[in-house]
Amino acid sequence: MHTATAQASPNIAFIKYWGNLDPHLRIPLNGSISMNLEGLHTRTTVSFDPGLEQDELILNGQPAPAEAIRRVSDILDLVRAMAGVSHPARVESENNFPTGVGIASSAAAFAALAAAASSAAGLSLDEAALSRLARRGSGSACRSVPGGFVEWLPGKDDRSSYAVSIAPPDYWNLVDCIVVVEETHKPVGSSTGHGLAETSPLQACRVADAPRRLESCKKAILARDFEAFAEITELDSNLMHAVMMTSTPALFYWTPISLEIMLSAARWRAGGLPVCYTLDAGPNVHLITTRSYLETLKAKVQSVPGVRRILTAGPGGPVKAVAPHGKIFR
Amino acid sequence: MHTATAQASPNIAFIKYWGNLDPHLRIPLNGSISMNLEGLHTRTTVSFDPGLEQDELILNGQPAPAEAIRRVSDILDLVRAMAGVSHPARVESENNFPTGVGIASSAAAFAALAAAASSAAGLSLDEAALSRLARRGSGSACRSVPGGFVEWLPGKDDRSSYAVSIAPPDYWNLVDCIVVVEETHKPVGSSTGHGLAETSPLQACRVADAPRRLESCKKAILARDFEAFAEITELDSNLMHAVMMTSTPALFYWTPISLEIMLSAARWRAGGLPVCYTLDAGPNVHLITTRSYLETLKAKVQSVPGVRRILTAGPGGPVKAVAPHGKIFR
Repeated sequence: MHTATAQASPNIAFIKYWGNLDPHLRIPLNGSISMNLEGLHTRTTVSFDPGLEQDELILNGQPAPAEAIRRVSDILDLVRAMAGVSHPARVESENNFPTGVGIASSAAAFAALAAAASSAAGLSLDEAALSRLARRGSGSACRSVPGGFVEWLPGKDDRSSYAVSIAPPDYWNLVDCIVVVEETHKPVGSSTGHGLAETSPLQACRVADAPRRLESCKKAILARDFEAFAEITELDSNLMHAVMMTSTPALFYWTPISLEIMLSAARWRAGGLPVCYTLDAGPNVHLITTRSYLETLKAKVQSVPGVRRILTAGPGGPVKAVAPHGKIFR
Repeated sequence: MHTATAQASPNIAFIKYWGNLDPHLRIPLNGSISMNLEGLHTRTTVSFDPGLEQDELILNGQPAPAEAIRRVSDILDLVRAMAGVSHPARVESENNFPTGVGIASSAAAFAALAAAASSAAGLSLDEAALSRLARRGSGSACRSVPGGFVEWLPGKDDRSSYAVSIAPPDYWNLVDCIVVVEETHKPVGSSTGHGLAETSPLQACRVADAPRRLESCKKAILARDFEAFAEITELDSNLMHAVMMTSTPALFYWTPISLEIMLSAARWRAGGLPVCYTLDAGPNVHLITTRSYLETLKAKVQSVPGVRRILTAGPGGPVKAVAPHGKIFR
């Protein structure tokens, strides 16, 4: 029996992924930029076992639904094909962060799965290959493979579509202050949402303008220029939600409280506090600030009625192999 | 002394005007469709008077600010040039609806001004010429000249850009239920906003798709097909606000309560109530329904916290000449 365990962090995108060139291979229509979230992680153990009849998946201690097993088996199949292995696998995965709070757990999950499964199968994949493999399970998972600040090079096919680090975690002391306003699951999942992007009359313009935004965002990160970073990050979030709310059917992920926090963030920034917002496919608001302003920001956020809880995370590292019980072994 | 009085209604656009091909002539980038609002009106009296030293403007009983006088004088200059008149004019204008509740008063104001000024100067302009003249003061004013359901043919120059009626007021018993959530003036006026439209990466796509939406909306009105009307009206409103919130600087006209009402309207419609929302450049929500559902809708809206008041209006008629004290004289 061959076993390996890996751990990966979710990431928050500053330049968003929304819409696919190839939905099956999850080749995106535009590149994206994100930051891994330190301290939040998924830990996944994969054991290829000839004694199993089929792949098994335990998520947070519970047997997973068939749909989740199917998505995991698709990745295991890719690994088995690469490694020449034919045994089924047992996969156990746990998050140390709450589910359903709008932190995309699939990114961390598929990054950890790609690393654990390939290692358990005896493969030694480099970062780009791991990133490509993670991408097949969930597009944004490719960004949880490299560390720190990460760019997903969109590419045109499987080979050319993977993520690279543009700056290490300690390059800039940004913090993601995740404002939880709803703890229920989102009504429309990301995979379905990506498929609706092309029904918006605005998607083509959003995609066409993406290279400019990627360049601005990368430049702002490398220069640690918060004001430029804030402007492009908020614009990009608004562009994605503009496409969502003009799709057919219309997807509104914002709630009134999300909007209250977004408008507050703009006011707070105008008042001198370095903060900006970004929202994924859900109502919770990611407020980005720098470490030294975190406590000031948290105090302001806590005064907004309707805020349920706040999680915080600085820039996180890459996916890594760990011992099953958590000790890093290489 | 030559005097005339005219009365015009504001209008609510279902397919919106946002962005100009020619800002000076107010030639729009795309056509638009609206409904005049019955019972709400501006009444304007114009008197050309050789005894005046310069144009005078009284708005709701108060001397108007210089900026408002300048905009009115520009229209008076056009009329004076057409009529061969050189005297200054005294203009008195009153609204019977509250100001600052998000009903665009400039549309009714410039439609009434165009009619009163041209009549006072002895001109007898046809509907298209009046519509063109009103357009020079405020783009959407051209739509308050014809009656009922109105389309603004965007055109390419002054001559080809004017509005026509596509159905009379009694064609369809729609009602605009105007949900007032804020009574203060908007922070960014429409004229400035139009100028920012081109800074949004999405505006080109919104404009390119406009002919399709105009066709859908016109078809839905002519067929009295509420479901089709609701879908295209909400989409078009979302498209305009998408452009606004992705402009530089970003323009957010929605407040959390606006969003609450928008999301509620979508739920109510899914539950069988014929209602849809549309928002102009302000936070107040125009809920469109049919006459027989108005009381049901009002009861639901009144239960939403934060609603300040509700105004209602069915389809209104064209601009018309009236006696100074309100009696219609032709």
